[in-house]
Parts: sequence; structure tokens; C-alpha cells
Amino acid sequence: MWGSAMAQAIDLNSDLGEGYGPWRMGDDGAMLDLVTSANIACGGHAGDPHTMFDTLSLANDRGVVAGAHPGFGDREGFGRRVIPCTTGEVECLVAAQVGALMGAAALAGTEVRYVKPHGALGNLAADDRSIADAIVRAVAAVSAKLAILAISGTELEAAARQRGSPVYREIFADRAYLPSGRLVPRSRPGAMIERPESAAARLIEFLTTGLMPTLDGPPIALAAHSICVHGDSPGAVAMARFIREALTSKGFVLKPFLNGAS
Amino acid sequence: MWGSAMAQAIDLNSDLGEGYGPWRMGDDGAMLDLVTSANIACGGHAGDPHTMFDTLSLANDRGVVAGAHPGFGDREGFGRRVIPCTTGEVECLVAAQVGALMGAAALAGTEVRYVKPHGALGNLAADDRSIADAIVRAVAAVSAKLAILAISGTELEAAARQRGSPVYREIFADRAYLPSGRLVPRSRPGAMIERPESAAARLIEFLTTGLMPTLDGPPIALAAHSICVHGDSPGAVAMARFIREALTSKGFVLKPFLNGAS
Amino acid sequence: MWGSAMAQAIDLNSDLGEGYGPWRMGDDGAMLDLVTSANIACGGHAGDPHTMFDTLSLANDRGVVAGAHPGFGDREGFGRRVIPCTTGEVECLVAAQVGALMGAAALAGTEVRYVKPHGALGNLAADDRSIADAIVRAVAAVSAKLAILAISGTELEAAARQRGSPVYREIFADRAYLPSGRLVPRSRPGAMIERPESAAARLIEFLTTGLMPTLDGPPIALAAHSICVHGDSPGAVAMARFIREALTSKGFVLKPFLNGAS
Amino acid sequence: MWGSAMAQAIDLNSDLGEGYGPWRMGDDGAMLDLVTSANIACGGHAGDPHTMFDTLSLANDRGVVAGAHPGFGDREGFGRRVIPCTTGEVECLVAAQVGALMGAAALAGTEVRYVKPHGALGNLAADDRSIADAIVRAVAAVSAKLAILAISGTELEAAARQRGSPVYREIFADRAYLPSGRLVPRSRPGAMIERPESAAARLIEFLTTGLMPTLDGPPIALAAHSICVHGDSPGAVAMARFIREALTSKGFVLKPFLNGAS
Repeated sequence: MWGSAMAQAIDLNSDLGEGYGPWRMGDDGAMLDLVTSANIACGGHAGDPHTMFDTLSLANDRGVVAGAHPGFGDREGFGRRVIPCTTGEVECLVAAQVGALMGAAALAGTEVRYVKPHGALGNLAADDRSIADAIVRAVAAVSAKLAILAISGTELEAAARQRGSPVYREIFADRAYLPSGRLVPRSRPGAMIERPESAAARLIEFLTTGLMPTLDGPPIALAAHSICVHGDSPGAVAMARFIREALTSKGFVLKPFLNGAS
Repeated sequence: MWGSAMAQAIDLNSDLGEGYGPWRMGDDGAMLDLVTSANIACGGHAGDPHTMFDTLSLANDRGVVAGAHPGFGDREGFGRRVIPCTTGEVECLVAAQVGALMGAAALAGTEVRYVKPHGALGNLAADDRSIADAIVRAVAAVSAKLAILAISGTELEAAARQRGSPVYREIFADRAYLPSGRLVPRSRPGAMIERPESAAARLIEFLTTGLMPTLDGPPIALAAHSICVHGDSPGAVAMARFIREALTSKGFVLKPFLNGAS
Repeated sequence: MWGSAMAQAIDLNSDLGEGYGPWRMGDDGAMLDLVTSANIACGGHAGDPHTMFDTLSLANDRGVVAGAHPGFGDREGFGRRVIPCTTGEVECLVAAQVGALMGAAALAGTEVRYVKPHGALGNLAADDRSIADAIVRAVAAVSAKLAILAISGTELEAAARQRGSPVYREIFADRAYLPSGRLVPRSRPGAMIERPESAAARLIEFLTTGLMPTLDGPPIALAAHSICVHGDSPGAVAMARFIREALTSKGFVLKPFLNGAS
Repeated sequence: MWGSAMAQAIDLNSDLGEGYGPWRMGDDGAMLDLVTSANIACGGHAGDPHTMFDTLSLANDRGVVAGAHPGFGDREGFGRRVIPCTTGEVECLVAAQVGALMGAAALAGTEVRYVKPHGALGNLAADDRSIADAIVRAVAAVSAKLAILAISGTELEAAARQRGSPVYREIFADRAYLPSGRLVPRSRPGAMIERPESAAARLIEFLTTGLMPTLDGPPIALAAHSICVHGDSPGAVAMARFIREALTSKGFVLKPFLNGAS
């Protein structure tokens, strides 16, 4: 696992393929030159068959590993609103969305290797064990080979671990941490790290020492297989490029977490 | 292949799982007690993750074989309108929809075994070789084990045969045939066979002799693995039940075409 | 206002036009022969331009007054799930949905006369004053002539009254009341009145005495301009017909609340 | 009517408000500083209640006249695909979409003044009189005050004129004309005028002489109340700004066609 002082390699992941019909979100082409794993929308909060196929094809061409990024089927809210669902409904939406992306991947001659829930579904999965269990159950039913990409310390990570599903951890490039290991809520000052230089410096410190700075306490020990960079904000490409270049200039190798060990 | 004088077994298939959200179409529960294969909507023209899962579960409980029934993503038109698409777009929609149903099937502990295109997509696939090829290509990409269920004599059948995909033939319980082997267009008088007695008598004659009566000519030689009965019209259940009972009373065995040989 | 001992007339309202594309919900044709006011879906939780037009035309043919029935734009959940929205978003969805129905009404040669919010939006409007205010504001902006149909004693009624919007009150044919005047929650035994005879007897008592029986207390004074009957459950038409016949046999006149006085 | 040698004023119109949920199309804010009339999507091919409201509010703030831009309810195809519809269905979709925008406009404290059909619906309306009649009928039913904005010489213009509906004509800033007065099909070389300088020079010649250059013939007499500039292509804002500045520097006044005479 990365995050130790000897870490040499790390993954960069980003949410991509989040267009719909004629609409685009962010610059997927540019981001796919920078990241090593792509969380691809599955037709729920975003994405449609052709957008899925194109994103999978582009990722495959660049050696970027494809993951499924299922979310509530709420396009107008982009999957960021909690849509009241039973755990059975969550299982169904995850299975159908992951399956849809796998179908498009087969057509594109590539494979879906992992699943990371999106937006409000991801937030629920972090805190609500029954939702986390439903997601893990659905993913395992679709394919035992599919990994889960989870935020470190969440219910989703615990659910996957308990079930024996392959699970990997991510940290965020542009979000500050609390001493508890949780993210600083977006509503608090300092929650977002906006300067690429700050984000890169913090990541380098973490990758070198295994300790992550916190907003108002001492650094904490964390472990991560992947760094999540955002793909859809105005400065997203510049931020991702700066981080990539800063990490490689310090000798870190960027490579997909699924080629590393669990 | 069935349709010979020695035929002992035949399949009944129907389009099912065509609800959406709170809405139902036909009486799936009753139909699943009568048919042996179910063409299940995949979230395109109808269906949503939960409806797919429920229909797959019900089919599995009753030993009914599940097929995917992809269609244009046009809910308001129920997939009956031709939506202009490139062949690449048809490939993508078929792959994603079949994949979605496979995901739901995995969750339900069952399998999708074949694909039959719906409505306007099915009509295009009957007559337009490039669309037929796109469908067959997408299905084969998703899984080489998936069969195609095609109307006898269509471009879809030819495309599947040429590619070497497993392909099975269906006839319609309630549609009259022309001497050319094609269906009588719905706009012509006599196109629809409305009385269950007439439909059953005609099917028994066909299954006994291998010859199908035509509207205005001599009977023609046809071969079929399955009989399509409609699931959504007011008398659908009664028609299907009458046909099932008439066939079994004559000694025919109703069983899924995918347990028979190609 | 009705509900006094001298009441001679009362309105029956029902939620109608709740199909979508090929799907129907309940038997609108039968219900439109029984009710005097129709709450018509506006393309949010249900309805599409053609369904709106058809329902408006049928209502107009029968002298049934048309109201708009806006709901969260959540077809899969039929508007019964709370979709997190700002009050500004609620204003926009109400204004756009009411406007859409008014456009269809103009084409059908009729008019939309009132607004009753649907499902989860209606529930929020009953309890949350900011949502109630948003709905009343949007309706008033679209047309000062539009009335609000509210459950007696709700925040929606209060918001409309404070703003000076025309507002009318409804009671439910098949829901039991608490001594507080609120509905018995569906989860409690006795919440639903399932026998048409019981529903009719209770309504006749109320219309005769102005007092409504409660589940576990003495009858309470209520006032109502309209009785809501459900249109989509299996026994809906039979229940509505029984109530209509029982009321008319006791000398009550069924007529639209908007032809009565506020 | 403009287009004579004495023309002093002209309108610039553009398709705006064509986002959906989280997605944007073009830079509406920049375009609304340049145009004088805005064709605003109505929730069919694009737009949702909040996007409609925001676009109407922005237009109102800048004194830009608002028009409705209804299209086939085909978001994935952005209204550019012909969706098979009866004329009755076209009437319904136009009435409901225009009504929806009028509802949002009332909330925004402004008004919808005209209607211009979008994409495939607009193309059909140019060539197919029954579709053109359906659109004009629906618009007139919704409000007799609503004008039609039509391409000069189309069936839509003729239908509006015959019915006595107010109708205005537009030309395109970036499309070449044939000697017949029709647009050069996009498939032909020279169909698109890509350089802002060329587009502006041609418009100035037309506004000065009333004669429009053609691709392979002599200039033709045309009359127009408005110039359509595109809002969604990469160079859209630069093209619109160049044209606006070129016209004003030549002494033309840019003002909404609906403040001019018919």
C-alpha cells in the first residue's frame, strides 16, 4: 500500500464521461492525458451509451484504467441530491449501471475494473452502512473481480473489507482533512485547497512521510492507493497537470492503482 | 429445428418488464406463468433497474428463460418510433442496454441468454442489413454466448447467421403471413388474428405440417423455434392461455428454445 | 363554505392525467364521469404534452373543472419522493409545470382554474411554510386568477390566505382523521377507509353536521369545499361511484368548487 | 420591413438557454450582451425550469426580448433528429413547451413575445406545410399576441401569414444562400461562412442594398427583420461580437424586431 516513506508510485483518478447527449462536462480529452484511472458515468447522473463508449475508448487508447461511477438516476441534479431509495433500489441501480458500462466497455474492447459511487450516493455510502453494504453486494453480484474505490475510513471501505471484496483507498487532492481523518466540510473556510502549488506540496509531503496535514491539528497517518483530482471545475485541467508534474518531478511514478497490490 | 412434422416441443415468448417507474404494461405475473421465454425491456423504451430486477426474478422463479429486449431510448414513443441513429449509435445502445440487463440479472441470480430487438429497432433490423449487422456486432461483443431471436427470413437472421452467432427463429401467434413469408402489414384487413381459436388452430396446423397458412395464397414452408405472443393488449393473457392449452392438449411440449438445439 | 348543516353542494376531485407516453394510470375516462374537478399532471411526476391535452379535452367535454397538479420532476418515483430543492427551484418547477398545462389547455379550448401540489411536494407544502410560500408565489405570478386547493389546516392554506390568493379546502374520502384535524398516518391501523359504505356514511355525516368523525376521539368541526377521491387504486372507480351515488341519493348536489363561493 | 436601402435598425437573435440540469451550452451571459432577441429552450430538446427562469431573468435585465424555442422532446439528440410525430402531437408539444416558458417568464417578471421552432422541428416547419400549420395553430391558441419568427420564404412563414399571425423573417449570419433564396445545404462547400469579416461584410451589403449575395449566382432581393447568430459553437461569441461591432460602426442600430414594425 502506498503512503509509506518508500512509496514510489501513485494513481490519479478523476470523474469523467459526465456529459449527456449534446452536453459536455469538463475536458475529458485533456484529463485522460493526465490521470491513470477514470471513474466513468454510467447513464445515471450523467452519461449515455455513446458517451460511455467514447470515454471508454479514449481511456483505453491512453492506458487509463476504467472504473464505473454509478449515481442516482437524477440528471437534473447531477446525482448530487439524495434521492430517497431503499437498499434494494440501490442494489438495482448499481447493478444495472455497472452492467451498462460493462456492455459499452466490451464493445470498446476494454474492461471495467472497479466501481466508485458518485455524488450523493457516494456520500451516503461513506456514512450509512446499509447503503454501503447494498453497493458492495451489487458490485460483487455483477462480478467478483470488480474492485471498490473508497475514501479511506468510510463505511464503504469497511463494507467491502468485511465482504472480502477487493478495495482500494483514495484521498483528495484539493480537500483539507480534519484530525479525525474525515474531510473538512465544504462549508468551513479552508475546506478547499485552491492553489495547485499548495495541493501538490501537501500531496508530496503525504507521499513522502505517510502523514497528511490537517486543518487545525497535527498531521495524521493515512494510507492511499489513489489521489482524486476533479475534472469539471474551471481550473481542473491546470490543477491536475500541475500535480502530475510536481509528483513526477519528485520521482513518483503515476500508474493505475489496479496494477499495484492491494 | 421445430416446424417439422415430428415437432414435439415449442417455445412461447413475450415482451415483458415493459413498465417504467410507477407504471405497468400488461400483466407480467400472469404472462410469466404461460410463456417459456421472456424478452425483458432494458431501460431504453421501457424498464428501469428495479423493474428489470423484479421481472428477471419472477422469470427465474418460474423457469422462464430471460432475453434482453433493447429498443430506442424513446420512452414517450415506447420505442415504436424510428429515432435517427448511426450504426455506431445503435451498437452503443444495444451494448449498454444488454449490459444493464445482465447486471440486473446477476443481482437476481440469473442470466440473460438471448437478445431480441424491440419495436422500431426490430423493424429496422428486419429490413436494413447495416442495422442488423450493428446489433449482431454489439451482442457478440458483449458476450459470444448470447443468442439472437429473429423473425424468420429477416436481415437480422441473415446477419447473425453470417457472423456465426447463435440465432433462433420466431413466428407470431396473432399475425397473418403473406406468400412471401413476410407479415401482412397491420394496415391491411386480416393482418391481425384476433380470435384465440383461429390463432391456435393455425399454429397447430403449422407445427403439425411445417406449413403456415397465408392470407391470399397457398401455405408456405416456415421453420420456427418460438412463437411470439403479445403481452400488453387487453386480451393478451387470455390469448396466450388459450394457445398454451390448445398446444399442450395436442401433445406439444412448451419449453424454452434455448434448451433445444439451434 | 360547505360543511355546514345547510350544505347542499359539494365537489369531488381526483388526480388524473397521470399516464406517461404509452403508460396509463387508473381509468381516467371512468373517473371523469364521476368527479367535478380534475387535478391534472403537468409533465413533472407524470403527464406529457399529449396526455395533458387529452385529459383536458375529456374533462372539458364533461364539464369537469381542470386544475394543475404539479410535482417533483421525478417520474421513476412518481413524485412521491422528496427531491431536495431550494425554494427558488420549487417556484420554477411550479411556474413551468402550471404554464405547460395552461398551454395545453389553451390548445384544448379550456382553462386551468386552480393548482393542487402532488405527492411529496404536497406533503412538504402542508408542513413547511417556506415551500408553501414558494408554491403560492409561483402560482400568483403565473396568474392571479388561479386558486389553490389545499388540505384544511395546512401551511399551504395559511400561505395562500396570507397572500390573498383564492384558496379552497379539501378533505379525503378514504383517510381517517385525528382529533387534531390532521390525517391519521398511513402506517397506523385504521388510517385508510377501505369500504365504500364506510367512506360514504362518514362523508354524509360530515356534510350533514359539519363534524368529521375521528379515529380515537370525538368528531371535530371541519370545513371543506371538495372531497378528494383516489383515481389510481384498483377499487378507485367503484369507490368514487359509490360515494357519488350515496351523496346524490341523500340530496347533495355534486358540482365544481370553483362555481361555488370561497 | 428592414432590408431596404434606408434600413437603420436590425435585430440579432440567437438560441440560448440550451443547458440542462448541470450542463451548459455556449456562453449565454456573453451572448445576451450582444443579441437583441433570445430564442429560449423550453424543456423539450434542452432547458429545465430553473434554466428557463435564469435565462429569462438575464434577458430581461439586459432588455433582450424573449422568444420560445420549442423542439422535439429529444434531449439526447438535442432536438436535431426528426422524431416521428402526428400534427396533433406537434401541436401539443408546442403548446405545452411555449406555456412552460410563459409560466417561467411570468415568475421572472417578463414576457414571451414570439416563437421560433428549433432544429429538426424548425426544418420540418420550413418544408412541410402540415407541420407549419400545426405550429402556427398551437401558438395562436396559446396567445394571439405571440409572433412567429420564420426563415424567409418557408412554409412556416406562409402558414403564419395565411392564418394572420404576426410573423417576422430572419436571415443567417453564417450561412450562404442559393439563387432560389434557400440556404446552401451544409453538405456543400461554401455553405458555412466562417470568417467574421466575411459574415459582417455580407450582412452590411445586404442591409445597405436589400440584396443578398448568393453562392453561385447574382445577389437576390431578400427582406429580414432579424439576423440569426449561433450561440453554441466555439467561435460563437467572437462572431456575434464582430458582427455587432461592424454593424454599429456602419451606423446600423441593433434593436429587437418586436419593437419595430411588421
